[in-house]
Amino acid sequence: MNMASTTRFCRILRQIPKLNRQYSSASDKFVDVQLNDDTGVATVTMQRPPVNGLNLELLQQLSSALDKLEGSKCNGMILTSSSPTVFSAGLDITEMYKPKPDRVKAFWSTLQDTWLKLYGSSFPTAAAINGHSPAGGCLLALSCEYRVMVGPKFTIGLNETQLGIVAPKWFQDSMRGVIAPRQAEMALTLGRMFSTAEAKEIGLVDEVVADKAQAITKAEEFLDKFSSVPHAARKLTKLSFRREPLEWLQKNKEADLNMFLNFVNQPKVQMGLELYMASLKNK
Amino acid sequence: MNMASTTRFCRILRQIPKLNRQYSSASDKFVDVQLNDDTGVATVTMQRPPVNGLNLELLQQLSSALDKLEGSKCNGMILTSSSPTVFSAGLDITEMYKPKPDRVKAFWSTLQDTWLKLYGSSFPTAAAINGHSPAGGCLLALSCEYRVMVGPKFTIGLNETQLGIVAPKWFQDSMRGVIAPRQAEMALTLGRMFSTAEAKEIGLVDEVVADKAQAITKAEEFLDKFSSVPHAARKLTKLSFRREPLEWLQKNKEADLNMFLNFVNQPKVQMGLELYMASLKNK
Amino acid sequence: MNMASTTRFCRILRQIPKLNRQYSSASDKFVDVQLNDDTGVATVTMQRPPVNGLNLELLQQLSSALDKLEGSKCNGMILTSSSPTVFSAGLDITEMYKPKPDRVKAFWSTLQDTWLKLYGSSFPTAAAINGHSPAGGCLLALSCEYRVMVGPKFTIGLNETQLGIVAPKWFQDSMRGVIAPRQAEMALTLGRMFSTAEAKEIGLVDEVVADKAQAITKAEEFLDKFSSVPHAARKLTKLSFRREPLEWLQKNKEADLNMFLNFVNQPKVQMGLELYMASLKNK
Repeated sequence: MNMASTTRFCRILRQIPKLNRQYSSASDKFVDVQLNDDTGVATVTMQRPPVNGLNLELLQQLSSALDKLEGSKCNGMILTSSSPTVFSAGLDITEMYKPKPDRVKAFWSTLQDTWLKLYGSSFPTAAAINGHSPAGGCLLALSCEYRVMVGPKFTIGLNETQLGIVAPKWFQDSMRGVIAPRQAEMALTLGRMFSTAEAKEIGLVDEVVADKAQAITKAEEFLDKFSSVPHAARKLTKLSFRREPLEWLQKNKEADLNMFLNFVNQPKVQMGLELYMASLKNK
Repeated sequence: MNMASTTRFCRILRQIPKLNRQYSSASDKFVDVQLNDDTGVATVTMQRPPVNGLNLELLQQLSSALDKLEGSKCNGMILTSSSPTVFSAGLDITEMYKPKPDRVKAFWSTLQDTWLKLYGSSFPTAAAINGHSPAGGCLLALSCEYRVMVGPKFTIGLNETQLGIVAPKWFQDSMRGVIAPRQAEMALTLGRMFSTAEAKEIGLVDEVVADKAQAITKAEEFLDKFSSVPHAARKLTKLSFRREPLEWLQKNKEADLNMFLNFVNQPKVQMGLELYMASLKNK
Repeated sequence: MNMASTTRFCRILRQIPKLNRQYSSASDKFVDVQLNDDTGVATVTMQRPPVNGLNLELLQQLSSALDKLEGSKCNGMILTSSSPTVFSAGLDITEMYKPKPDRVKAFWSTLQDTWLKLYGSSFPTAAAINGHSPAGGCLLALSCEYRVMVGPKFTIGLNETQLGIVAPKWFQDSMRGVIAPRQAEMALTLGRMFSTAEAKEIGLVDEVVADKAQAITKAEEFLDKFSSVPHAARKLTKLSFRREPLEWLQKNKEADLNMFLNFVNQPKVQMGLELYMASLKNK
């Protein structure tokens, strides 16, 4: 990340509320899980104010929630946010600034594991995207099997390139499984954020609705379609479709982690992050 | 296949005419081939009442017809049905109930061979889908290069998942070659049957017409486009596009066969089939 | 190429102006490069009258221009033509008729290298397609990241199959990266030339405009979108998307060259070319 991209990085992030700089405590509950006993559908809500920055603790709780849902044979999962304006702003960059070696490794490994569990979940998944969804937020949404987004004012996209970051292969694969290759190449080389109307047009989201309640309803309707589908056959069919991206990351976790660590530990990346942190304090 | 899916299985199949339970004799002619001497186009008609259930004999005759057409350097093939309401109901499940080891092996191997010959045929192919086309019926249609379907009341789809069955990789590949990956994943995890309007919208069929005569005409028009295209270059270009799915099955025939045999020989699958057979007798 | 396809070949090519049969001299300038100092965008113009037939010299100059642009860290490239009716008619067939072994090897190798450099360029690329664009002309356009075409009277497509030629795998891959697999299979097995309206509908071109000036403007607008995107991240993201086709050719250059040489040296291909050359002289 060079100075120019750092400036851009700041400009973009200033559009969303100030990051919560307080360190998380182990007792914080960043992920809430509510199981509907009638339908067997779990609603998983990210609730780390103000922007659901994906830090180690949130990811650990999300990963753990996915494990529990796998164990409970739930009928489906809706992923959403407690914020009225942000689904998730993506990775919490405080995890990358002057990182402690052990923590930053755990951070990226937990992101990998969370994606493997979400992308390859045995139960059907839908995202109720009730706010902005850049970068890692978009990744989580793309990993679900259906996307309903609240419009028209929010945006979604894998905008890593805009920030001087190359979206890892599994981010790209998640996008390629959803939109046409041509659209995915343009979206990712531009690091483009899409309006809900644009996202709907290229298939990046499946439906656009007016508010969160409708998003939840539409997500429930999608999941309900599977209520009459035998679970085992459905699960194996899904995994068969998603096998290549899942196997790639399973086989390349170490190399993918090292690529991230090399990137984060570049002096110019650290300098960029420092400038960004300073700009936040001066707001 | 569990009890719940067996019930579903029965409900779905009851919507189509009762299966012909009589055993086939070697002299039955389940596949009719008519060659148009003017155009060089062969019309291959499946004619095993009432629903063109794909049993060993029908598949052997279809496989044999494809061999003969390869040998005769025909200019194209139209695949259709003699039934006014069903293109093909898919695999004949009587082949799977208390199967004799040799016959059930021959059954699946012949299905594999038929698909390899149809999907990789040197001549252009079109399906005139003049009735319902679930599961194996849809597979045959997907393996052609063009699909014209009679609408609006018939349905088409790979609905194996609904029946508790995982569509083999080559079924999935046949679908993925025709519609977008996103649509293919949803279609197969849901085991969804599409109306002709829905099928047209996602590209699962190319044209929807009012009756069989029109379907044949449109199929002929598609094949006629190739009359000015050099055969060898066309064939090699087609095979280049279809190489991966074809090579996969060629290399994995044995493993794919064993997966099928393991599935069929599960006690719960046999019990499911027994209940289904009983339900047919009581109709 | 048989007689029938040779006749077709002639009929098609007669629609475009007579080929320049004069041998090129080393001093001919077939490729013009203009760098806009304000935007950092280079306009690369093919200018080999009458139809920008891709001969060894044009390809060498194009390859060399791409090298220089890589070295100069340009912000983008627009590929266009000096002809008012033809973007490029594709490979110059005089390179294939009674070819000298060294020259024909250099010819195909240079085409390979040019494609590798264009398809994998570190800078963003756009084609301003201001005329007919068959075969190799279409390949160059497909290798760019955006296509603006002057309509409505020009046509574009990989029509090799019509000429009895199998488009090499990397030609096919270039098409598959741009349009849906189903559309690509039909386009290539038919060797179909598309009108601008048809090309726009399936995504083969991104925009259709009324004249070359507008095509250049739209191409500039596309490239300008990248002005705020960090170069290194953009480049790596692009290469990640295009890795498989690029790696395939890099690994299979020799085999791909031999396939071409075997084709060209077939007596019937040479006879077909001879008939075609004769037909040109008689025009």
